[in-house]
Amino acid sequence: MLPDKVEMLATMKRVKPFIHNTPVLTSTSIDRITGIRLFFKCENFQRMGAFKMRGATNAILKLSDDQKANGVVTHSSGNFAQAIALAARSTGIKAFVVMPSNAPKVKKAAVLGYGAEVIECPSTIRDREVTAATIAEEKGATFIHPSNDLDVIMGQGTAAMELIEKYKDLDHIIVPVGGGGLLAGTALATHHFSPKTEVIAGEPFGADDAWHSLKAGRIIPCVNPQTIADGLRTSLGYQNFPIIKKLVKNIIRVEEQEIIEAMKLILQRMKIVVEPSSAVALAALIRESENFKDKNVGVILSGGNVDLENLPF
Amino acid sequence: MLPDKVEMLATMKRVKPFIHNTPVLTSTSIDRITGIRLFFKCENFQRMGAFKMRGATNAILKLSDDQKANGVVTHSSGNFAQAIALAARSTGIKAFVVMPSNAPKVKKAAVLGYGAEVIECPSTIRDREVTAATIAEEKGATFIHPSNDLDVIMGQGTAAMELIEKYKDLDHIIVPVGGGGLLAGTALATHHFSPKTEVIAGEPFGADDAWHSLKAGRIIPCVNPQTIADGLRTSLGYQNFPIIKKLVKNIIRVEEQEIIEAMKLILQRMKIVVEPSSAVALAALIRESENFKDKNVGVILSGGNVDLENLPF
Repeated sequence: MLPDKVEMLATMKRVKPFIHNTPVLTSTSIDRITGIRLFFKCENFQRMGAFKMRGATNAILKLSDDQKANGVVTHSSGNFAQAIALAARSTGIKAFVVMPSNAPKVKKAAVLGYGAEVIECPSTIRDREVTAATIAEEKGATFIHPSNDLDVIMGQGTAAMELIEKYKDLDHIIVPVGGGGLLAGTALATHHFSPKTEVIAGEPFGADDAWHSLKAGRIIPCVNPQTIADGLRTSLGYQNFPIIKKLVKNIIRVEEQEIIEAMKLILQRMKIVVEPSSAVALAALIRESENFKDKNVGVILSGGNVDLENLPF
Repeated sequence: MLPDKVEMLATMKRVKPFIHNTPVLTSTSIDRITGIRLFFKCENFQRMGAFKMRGATNAILKLSDDQKANGVVTHSSGNFAQAIALAARSTGIKAFVVMPSNAPKVKKAAVLGYGAEVIECPSTIRDREVTAATIAEEKGATFIHPSNDLDVIMGQGTAAMELIEKYKDLDHIIVPVGGGGLLAGTALATHHFSPKTEVIAGEPFGADDAWHSLKAGRIIPCVNPQTIADGLRTSLGYQNFPIIKKLVKNIIRVEEQEIIEAMKLILQRMKIVVEPSSAVALAALIRESENFKDKNVGVILSGGNVDLENLPF
């Protein structure tokens, strides 16, 4: 059974004091180029620079007092590491973040800067999982998964709730899909608060496990992903896939060059920085723009944490 | 005599339908880094990507019907070229833009894209002036100077008017100074609508003619400017200097590396794209941050037209 409207509203109320209600920007020139009326929900302006702050905050706030006393643990080399660290600091609890030893120094520094304890491990998924489980065991910390957790999923849904509250007449909302937390949360929010709006996802051809999973009707893991969209190299999980399977009809796959072009277009025309994963959503709309002609489409720009010294152009 | 309050209000009313009331963004992390409460007026989100749209629009709208029938001419290789082109198109009149033949192709393409006629000339200031004068003579077009024109100056002042309307308690407003149009307009607006707010400017050491002019009490032209802030390589003029001399007490000069660092900080922390000229204002505040501790400071981010393939980092 899907989480209901009441739970979604409670989630919004819970996280609201800890997150930004991010602005929605429009762009006359991108509308002209695409022929679509676009409404960009700017989660790149969210605290720590990505929507992940929402889910991390919700999951932490739902812990019992006993759990809170022992802190939380997650494994991530990306935005969720920073999200857990900042959400934990904001709510006054301890966070342990397992990161691969080859993670970029700047990301490790950001997590440390938010006051979390970083535990390094070898870079395989298996090593990360085992290390996180060991920390959970040793410290009594509660493990929070970056995307396969209902509280995280509902937290991510608050971005779409804010967007829908501002714009009632969206024909579609599009998000990038990686681990599936944002997609499932967006689909839930839309299902409850704007049922006529269709939720779709963009995904790189180089990491198209969600596309294959949706087609097959079962989770097909992401193996050896090859994409610049580093936030989308993960697999769907058993908590979010049933929601996606039930509520999402369409995933559009895009080429790497299309991702780079969309990222550049957003930078040049909107003057805002988004990470490649975020650009996947716009790239998908541009690829199939004839299907969205003159539609009102919400685009969740998922984050803006990009290495400025290694831009892909 | 300075243009009065009534004229400024009339200017606002005149340009309002043709420009964006750009958002004001804040950044918890840059506030923490600088120790200043900063309010960023995002003219990088303005139409054509810079505040110049305001002045160009006002100058064009103030023309008589006869003048409008013959169009306008300017010389610029930068944002004012695009501003005149777009403002002319928005108001349905013809624009001639004199550009140096070595101007970047992308800038020429942008001006052509807005429907203006581009006239190429050799790259010296003298050649540009003569070519523009010839066009004015031949076509009967009215010449509009990018910064040394009272209507342009008042138009630029509308950015500060919008900022002041939103934030009543600014201790300072800082802008970059190049040709002096934005600085004079901001000073005028602040003088009339928030007299307790002090207007200051940031300027590169490599093009510090305004600093020298203010010190000397007379215009000292900018000779052989050396700065990455390409919008600030011009000199003050007889229309804006008297206003600046009367209303502006302080210009802070900054090094090139400080400009680059400030630009990077804005990109990384605020996730928005600004051109180097815009970053000069924040660089100046950071350089003398001890003087602005805990103050409320408005920063006009003048524009966001930057060559993404040649970022200075």
